[in-house]
Parts: sequence; C-alpha cells; structure tokens
Amino acid sequence: MNYQEILDEIGHEFKAVQFEGKVASYIPELANVSPDKFGMHICCLKGGNYSLGNARESFSIQSISKVLSLTLAHLYEGDKIWKRVDVEPSGDPFNSLVQLEFENGIPRNPLINAGALVISDILVSHLSNPKQDYLDFVRKLAGDATVDFNLKVAASEKEWGFRNSALINLMKSFGNIQNDVEEVLDFYFHKCSIEMSCATLARTFLLFANHGQLLGRGEAVIPKSQTKRINAIMQTCGFYDEAGEFSFRVGLPGKSGVGGGIVAVHPGAYSVAVWSPKLNPKGNSSQGMAALEALTTKSGLSIF
Amino acid sequence: MNYQEILDEIGHEFKAVQFEGKVASYIPELANVSPDKFGMHICCLKGGNYSLGNARESFSIQSISKVLSLTLAHLYEGDKIWKRVDVEPSGDPFNSLVQLEFENGIPRNPLINAGALVISDILVSHLSNPKQDYLDFVRKLAGDATVDFNLKVAASEKEWGFRNSALINLMKSFGNIQNDVEEVLDFYFHKCSIEMSCATLARTFLLFANHGQLLGRGEAVIPKSQTKRINAIMQTCGFYDEAGEFSFRVGLPGKSGVGGGIVAVHPGAYSVAVWSPKLNPKGNSSQGMAALEALTTKSGLSIF
Amino acid sequence: MNYQEILDEIGHEFKAVQFEGKVASYIPELANVSPDKFGMHICCLKGGNYSLGNARESFSIQSISKVLSLTLAHLYEGDKIWKRVDVEPSGDPFNSLVQLEFENGIPRNPLINAGALVISDILVSHLSNPKQDYLDFVRKLAGDATVDFNLKVAASEKEWGFRNSALINLMKSFGNIQNDVEEVLDFYFHKCSIEMSCATLARTFLLFANHGQLLGRGEAVIPKSQTKRINAIMQTCGFYDEAGEFSFRVGLPGKSGVGGGIVAVHPGAYSVAVWSPKLNPKGNSSQGMAALEALTTKSGLSIF
Amino acid sequence: MNYQEILDEIGHEFKAVQFEGKVASYIPELANVSPDKFGMHICCLKGGNYSLGNARESFSIQSISKVLSLTLAHLYEGDKIWKRVDVEPSGDPFNSLVQLEFENGIPRNPLINAGALVISDILVSHLSNPKQDYLDFVRKLAGDATVDFNLKVAASEKEWGFRNSALINLMKSFGNIQNDVEEVLDFYFHKCSIEMSCATLARTFLLFANHGQLLGRGEAVIPKSQTKRINAIMQTCGFYDEAGEFSFRVGLPGKSGVGGGIVAVHPGAYSVAVWSPKLNPKGNSSQGMAALEALTTKSGLSIF
Repeated sequence: MNYQEILDEIGHEFKAVQFEGKVASYIPELANVSPDKFGMHICCLKGGNYSLGNARESFSIQSISKVLSLTLAHLYEGDKIWKRVDVEPSGDPFNSLVQLEFENGIPRNPLINAGALVISDILVSHLSNPKQDYLDFVRKLAGDATVDFNLKVAASEKEWGFRNSALINLMKSFGNIQNDVEEVLDFYFHKCSIEMSCATLARTFLLFANHGQLLGRGEAVIPKSQTKRINAIMQTCGFYDEAGEFSFRVGLPGKSGVGGGIVAVHPGAYSVAVWSPKLNPKGNSSQGMAALEALTTKSGLSIF
Repeated sequence: MNYQEILDEIGHEFKAVQFEGKVASYIPELANVSPDKFGMHICCLKGGNYSLGNARESFSIQSISKVLSLTLAHLYEGDKIWKRVDVEPSGDPFNSLVQLEFENGIPRNPLINAGALVISDILVSHLSNPKQDYLDFVRKLAGDATVDFNLKVAASEKEWGFRNSALINLMKSFGNIQNDVEEVLDFYFHKCSIEMSCATLARTFLLFANHGQLLGRGEAVIPKSQTKRINAIMQTCGFYDEAGEFSFRVGLPGKSGVGGGIVAVHPGAYSVAVWSPKLNPKGNSSQGMAALEALTTKSGLSIF
Repeated sequence: MNYQEILDEIGHEFKAVQFEGKVASYIPELANVSPDKFGMHICCLKGGNYSLGNARESFSIQSISKVLSLTLAHLYEGDKIWKRVDVEPSGDPFNSLVQLEFENGIPRNPLINAGALVISDILVSHLSNPKQDYLDFVRKLAGDATVDFNLKVAASEKEWGFRNSALINLMKSFGNIQNDVEEVLDFYFHKCSIEMSCATLARTFLLFANHGQLLGRGEAVIPKSQTKRINAIMQTCGFYDEAGEFSFRVGLPGKSGVGGGIVAVHPGAYSVAVWSPKLNPKGNSSQGMAALEALTTKSGLSIF
Repeated sequence: MNYQEILDEIGHEFKAVQFEGKVASYIPELANVSPDKFGMHICCLKGGNYSLGNARESFSIQSISKVLSLTLAHLYEGDKIWKRVDVEPSGDPFNSLVQLEFENGIPRNPLINAGALVISDILVSHLSNPKQDYLDFVRKLAGDATVDFNLKVAASEKEWGFRNSALINLMKSFGNIQNDVEEVLDFYFHKCSIEMSCATLARTFLLFANHGQLLGRGEAVIPKSQTKRINAIMQTCGFYDEAGEFSFRVGLPGKSGVGGGIVAVHPGAYSVAVWSPKLNPKGNSSQGMAALEALTTKSGLSIF
C-alpha cells in the first residue's frame, strides 16, 4: 500500500469506531470545537503529500509549539539551555509542580509547561520583538506567511492561566526566570495560540525528518546533530506521562497538544500530523494516537 | 569509516580521558572488578563483528537481564502482562518505592526493579523449572551453551537484597505478586547474576535489531510488532532516571546494568555492547555512555 | 456533672446516632468483632473509676501498644533512640513508605508502623526474652497478671504482614534495623496482639496522667520529664494523618488502634479508654473520637 | 522560683551559650537585624509581668500574625472555614507546594503560608477595609493603639514574594481563592509586617491562655471552645515541620515567625513571648526554642 491507500483505509476503518475522550474545556475557545473533526496529513521527503478528512482546517496547535520554541532557543543559546532545563521524561502531568519543587526549579524537560516557560524566558531575553520574531520563524518553517496567533485564545489562556502563573513564580523564586513573569507569560500564551492545519503542521515539522533542512529549499535551519536530539526529546518527553505509551504503540518521536493535534516524524522518511479534539484522560488525542498507531502498523515501518 | 575503524578511534581517543564514576560496591563480587576494564563489540546484521579492548571478557549483566525476562514473559502471557506493569518512564531511581505506593503496586515499567520482580513472578508461574528454563532461553538467544549464572553473585545479592525485599512485599500487599516472595526473589537474583562478554551480549541482543529473528538461524523468536515494542520500552525506560539523557546523547534504544555493561540496538543495522565498570551517580556506566555517543556521532547514524 | 453522669449522658445520646465506619477487615480475627460494641472507662487520679457499656470486655489494642513499647525502649536506651526515629507528625497514613524513603529510613515518629518497628528492634536487642519481658512490663503497668497476647491474632497479622515486611526491609536497607527482620516482625506482631478491656487500658495508661508514677503504688516507672515528652508525642503523632483533627476536637494526648480502641490522658486529672470497632477512613474509631470529644466538651476541661 | 527568677536564671545561663543559626536574609529589612538580640516576656493571668533582655524592643512578628488572622476569620465565618483549610500538621516546610497539589488546593492548616493565604482571602471578602480593620483588631487584643505595619517590610516581601505568588495562583487554579490574587497578597504581606515587642506580643496572646477573654477587660473575644481549638492547632501546626520537636521539648502550644519571635501559651496560667533572630535550619528561632524549653523545665509546668 502507498501512504494515500493507508490513510484511506484508516479513514474507512475509523468510521465504525467511537473514540472516547473529551474536548479540552478550560477555555471557551477550545471547548467550542466540534468533537468530530478528524484530519491527517503526511509529507514525504521524496515529495509526496497525502491527506485525509479535515486535513486543511486550522486548529490550535497549543503545546506542539513547544518543539518549535525549543528549536529557536537552541539556535540562540546552544547547549547552555541544558543548564536551565533537563531532558528527562517527567512521569507526571504536563503542569505538575511537585518535581519542580523537589528539583529546585529546574524543569524535567522543555516539553512540559514549566520547561516551555523557561524556554520562553530565554527567547524573551534574545528576541527584540519576541512575538513577531517567533511568528516569523514559524512562518519560515511552515513556508506559509499566513500562519498566525489566535488572539482570543491567547487572551483566554491568560485569563485562566493560574497554574502556569504558579509554575513561573515558583521557578522565579528559584532564580530560573530572568525576565518579568507577566511578559514571559504573555509571550508563552501567544506562542501556544498559533493555529495550523494538519497539512501546514506536517510541513512545518518536515525538517525534523530531514536532518534539520528545509526540504527543497536548500537551507539547513538546524544542524543534523541537534535535529537528532530534538527528535530524541520528543520521543521520551513528547506526551507528558504517556510518552512511554506513545513510543510503545506508535514507535515514532512526536508531540501532542490539548487542541487535539499530534505531529510525529519518521527521520529519513516523512512527517505526519493528525487532528481529533477528543482527549484521553492524560490529555492526548485518543483518535490521533490510534491513527498514528495504525499508520506505523499498516506501513510496517517505525524507528524501531 | 567502517565500524572497526570507528571502534579503534574510540579506543585511541579514550586513552587520554579519565572517566569519573565508581564501581558498584553493594556486594563484594561487583566491588572487586577492576575499574579500568573497557570492552566494546558490534554485531552487524550484514554479518560483521567488530571488537575493542576487553570485549571477550565476561562480566555480570545484572539489569540487562530484565529485557530478556520481559521478552520471555511476553511469549507466555502476551499483552496480559501490561495489566500488571506499565510502560512509562519512571523518572525515579531504579529501586524507588515512592511511585509504587502512589500507584497501588503497579510498577511503572518492566525495566525497573519492581517491574522486573513482577515479570519474575509471571515466569515463576509459567516455567516448570524457572532458573534452568530461563537459562536455556538466554543460551539459545546467545547461541552459546556456556552462558551461566554466577552463584556467588546470586547469593550475595540475596544477602543484601533488603530493598528488593521491600519492593516485592509492598507489591504483594497490593496483590500484584502471586507466588511466594522468597521463591520469586531467588529466581530474580539468579537472573541478574548471568555473566556474558560484550561479544556474547551483542550477539544475544541482535534479534532486537533483526525484527525478532535469530540472524542466520532462520527462526523468529518474537514477532516483529513485539520487537518494536520492546525496543520502544528500552528507548524510554532503559536507563532509570537517565533514559532521556541516553536517548538525547546516543539516540538508540538500550539497557544498562550496574555491572557496567550497556547494550544498544540500531534496528535494521546492528547491536552493540560496551563494558566499563565505573558508574555515574545515576548508576549507568560513564565510559559506556560516552562510547556509544561517540559511535552514533562518528557513524552519523541513529534512529533519529 | 460528675464523670459518671457525663458517661451516662454520652451513652444515652449516642443511642440515637448511627456512626459510620467499617470494622478492620484485613485479618479475620478483627473482622469478626461485632461493630456495635461500645465501651468507655475513666480512671481518675483522685481514685474514681467510671464505666459505660462494654467497658469490661477485652479487645485487641493493636497500635495503642506502640506507646508502651516506646516507654520501655526509652528506659533502656534513653534519648539515644531519637537518633533512629524522629518525633514529628507524619501527615501520612500509618503504613506509608514514601516519607521513609525520602528520609533515608528514619521514621517520622515512634507511633507509626515504621517507628514502632525500630522501637521493636531496640527492644529485641535489649530484652533477653523479648515477648515475655514485654508482657511482664505491660502487666505491671496494668496491675493485671492476666493480660496476654492473642496468638491467633499475632499469627494472622504475620500471614498478611507484607506491608510491614516492606517497611522493615526498607529500613534494613538503610541500616536502621539491627536484628533479623523475621525476629523483629514476630515480636512486633505479638506486641500488637495484646488484648485489654477499656477498664484495664485506662488503668495501664494512668501513669501518663500521673507524671510517670503508678497510682497508689508509690513507684515512678518513668521520670516526669519523660512522661511529658511521651504525652507530647501522643498529642502530635497519635492518630496518623488525623492527629490534628483529634487534637482540635478532643484536646487531649491519645493513641488509637485499628481494633477500635482509643486511650487518652488528661495530665494531672485522669486517663480514659474508649472502644468502638467501626473505623473512619483514616483508621480511627468514629464513635470513639466522638465520645472523647463529648467528654471534654461536657466536662469543659482539656489541656488547652 | 518565681517567673522573674526563672527568667533571670535563663538570662544568666544563656550568656555562656553560643546559639547556632542564621538571621532570615530573604529581604534586607530582616537581614539587617542584629543576631544578638534576645528578649523574653511572661504575662500571667494572675496579673504579673516578667521581662528579660530586649523584651521591649519591636521586631517583625511575621508568621505569628497567622494565629490572629485565623482568629478573626473564624469570627466571621465560623466552622465554614474548615472546608477550605484543614487542621493537620503538614510535615513539610512552611512554603511547600507539594501537598497542596496532591490535595487539590486545600492547605493542610491555617498556620502554613498556603493556609494563611486562604484565611487572608476570607478576610478580604469580609472586611470593608481589610488592612485597617485587621490592624484595629490586633490593636484591640494588644491593648496598644501604636501597633502598626512596617511598610518597608511589606513592600520588600511583595518584591520577593514569588513563592507565595506560586502558592496563591496554584490555589486559585483549584478554585480555593475567591478574590484577586494581587489584592490578597497585598493584604497578606501587610499582615506579616506587623511589629511588636515581646511584652506586647505576650499581652496580645494572653486571651488564648484566658479561654478567649481579654484579661481584666471583661470581654470575651472568642468562645472558650474556639480558644481550645486554636490552641490545639498551634500545638500540632505552629512550627512547620518542627511542630513535634517543639511540642516534645517545650510542651506548650505556640507559634514562631521568621523574624525570630515565638509566642506560647499555658492555658489557665500565662502567655510568653521570646525573640532571638538566629533561626535553625527549619526556620524557627534556636535560642527562642531553648529559652522556652528552659522555662517549662525550670517551672516544672507544661500542659502535659
């Protein structure tokens, strides 16, 4: 089967399945999304693009943004960032404070909220115009100048962001936040509010399958060795306290968001994005995980 | 460079480096090993074997044995074992009781002590002669009938095994151990006492690089889909609370033991074993991790 | 009102109340006790004895025994025991392992299981015939040579004592248990199996209200300063993670057991024992706590 | 000996002792206090006042204020407050977030920071002019209209209050804070900045020794039953993770502050305040604890 046949088969099989889960409801903008949305898109390094369902409809990428901000922060600070954030799986929910307190304000990894707040702090220190500069970086990877923040989502996140406020203040008390907490939170909430379709998202992450290079655009955004490391972090830390389960079932590095999106990459082969808003109890898209498991099972290919 | 050239270069470069770390000292049999031992061995699917240093000298494989017992237990019980042990990274030391208590006696994964004790309990239930049957299985994978337990090590582990006794009694109190605790512990301590050289160890793990088949022996020991999953578990859980670091630096699934051994596999390409007894504070071989990082960096190949 | 009138009023009022709770069921010997038993007994320093209901029926004193073993151990080792066990409230259930692991095998206080196991280890080191010698000590305090172990209870505790086995092995791994774990556990389970009536129990604890002296027998068993300290430990640690609640509602130092007994003392005034087997979710007698709260409210007297 | 003789003896004996500890240094206003200050003052119900050293010099009462705000909040809401804050010892440092997260934003007790923030939130809801109204209440208890906030201390606390900000935001995320976090923090920091001398502090707490009545002023501020409960909470929760130690050594209910003050009461007898700025590693005044231990030892009187 080729990829389009696999996607079509997944689309066909999943019609008969009722996936469990609840749409994220902590802010109205996410709660209003239809739970029945389902899209999937594959970008191959060889050039092919394959789509299923609502693959061209935009959604809130939320925590998926953390991989992109990590990538940008590393371009500015290099391995110095590992003094302020670790690379270990957390084994805890995405917004837990427990480990952070035991470990003196050093987050377990850059893909949980605490770690992404430290990365945001680093970017606020380096970027002259943090929100616009970050958006320009993402647009460049996406090859799409229309990618944008959803300002209503960003404002709503801020209004209900008490736990993120707790996290950043705790880290500030340990000296691991250098800028004003309000400024960093504002940048962080905007960052999470970016909207993309599965097609754009897969395209944006294709460089992680391509050793750090923008496909067909002759440009190395990040070195090969660094691409390997970001993929490794996605593999062990991309799904909060379900990273092992995703690795076990899907066998690819990836990252999820509470908007229901998941992106994954098969280094040397393809990137893939899937979107279905119903989340399992650990905050990851139920149907999204199942779809990616079906993809690697049907294709017989994974990194393992 | 071919693999032998890479190994030789590693051997040459490491002569100038003083690796930090301490030989495991909780039992005399491990404490007496020379800290300067260093061996490495690669088995390629294409047939080549490449060695460095003390690659043919036997050492105690300790926790590396946990991957083999998981493999055998899955052959008997299939996916039923995942009701009694999870597949998530622990984020804690190998012998921590904290998570086990919070999570009602269900260990985080089969590669920490608690999980391996549950796997041992499963094997004691199924094998008519647990120690001998297990040894026969390992000898078959190794293609070497001389592989054996070190009875002095097993006896010494038992004498000092209070923490493992605490772990298994705690799980028994939650109903997650079915056999007599002494019998399971006896089997567990023997299992950990197996000795192998780097050459034998790499050979034993070659099936995990070969989709579950014994190379050149035309036999599928475990199905391809199951091999993928065991590799995924090694990737996320093989190094206690340093799994992220190993994944980040080396980019291969692997497993370490307090005897100073590490085995890793590159699916579709090769298996590799390394041995150096000096352990870092997290209980993994310092030089072993550095050697594997050098291997994937010099070869430019990893699963990411 | 005098004490008998208060007891009678409590007996009258409680007839109309249905107390919630479950009889301890982890061993058959405790599960078989009638949930409707209710007894209460006050011993005054001035000489009076006041009884209510099943005050002369024996029950398993269980953890209440921990105060007596602490008292005896201190006579042998003095303040050296505080190097091996702390005096802080645990804030955790009676048999939790979490704190014990974080705090390197030093139990929070001598009135949780872990602490009482350390105290048992100390007594095993000092007593030539631990079980008999301990029994003799308790009989002396009780002024009753018929007080005895219930051997069926002791045997049953041992058969189901996996969690205590986990606790003691964990402490042994930290070096905080000096004798053989089986021997200490055997002593510990016997100690907890002692049976007394409310009348005997109140009598046994009267010395803690009497600055350490046996009333009317002209003998100081423990010094006044030490009596103050044991009372202080009961006050802050006597009810597992409900010590604050007991202190808040009752206002006296005391100790509970899973057999449904509670003993409390008002220094300079009286000792009181109550028995009702139905336990609240935290393992303390529901009706017992209510009865003691009624006693201090009706009498208008507490240490505060 | 009478109380003055005891105080004089303590003053004499302590001259030869070098107490260990460090003056609180997280804000400059506390760091600048001389470490050698030492004052003590006893107010007897029978009317006597006894002083030692710097007993009439003002210092920052800090967390001691938490007992007074609890008292006032209970006057407004009664036992409803116990739905939002528990009465159990925390077993953790005063500003820990761990338990708060596990227990869904319900603080362990009203005398740790998190609990005092909830109490502050309650007062902000009820008082028309929180800061002034609270100050008036304290002045009334003190019988001293000159008691006041130190505005520099309050401002400095706010500037460095990231951890308190983390605590209150975490509770807000659980729905346990009803007012604006900034407004509650502002009230809280003012509350902690109140300054008193030992003499004024002992006088202010005398009602807790006097069943809730202002001595000689014929007014019951709080009911007797409620006074008992506040004393019980001080006994089990007044010294963070050293409450057991204080109870064990001193045998009185009390409360400490990082300014180096400690207040304690002997119900029916006296109140006592001590001040010495050097804190032990758990944040309580070293010399203060020793002085109170000497007091109850020399007088032979404690609640136990």
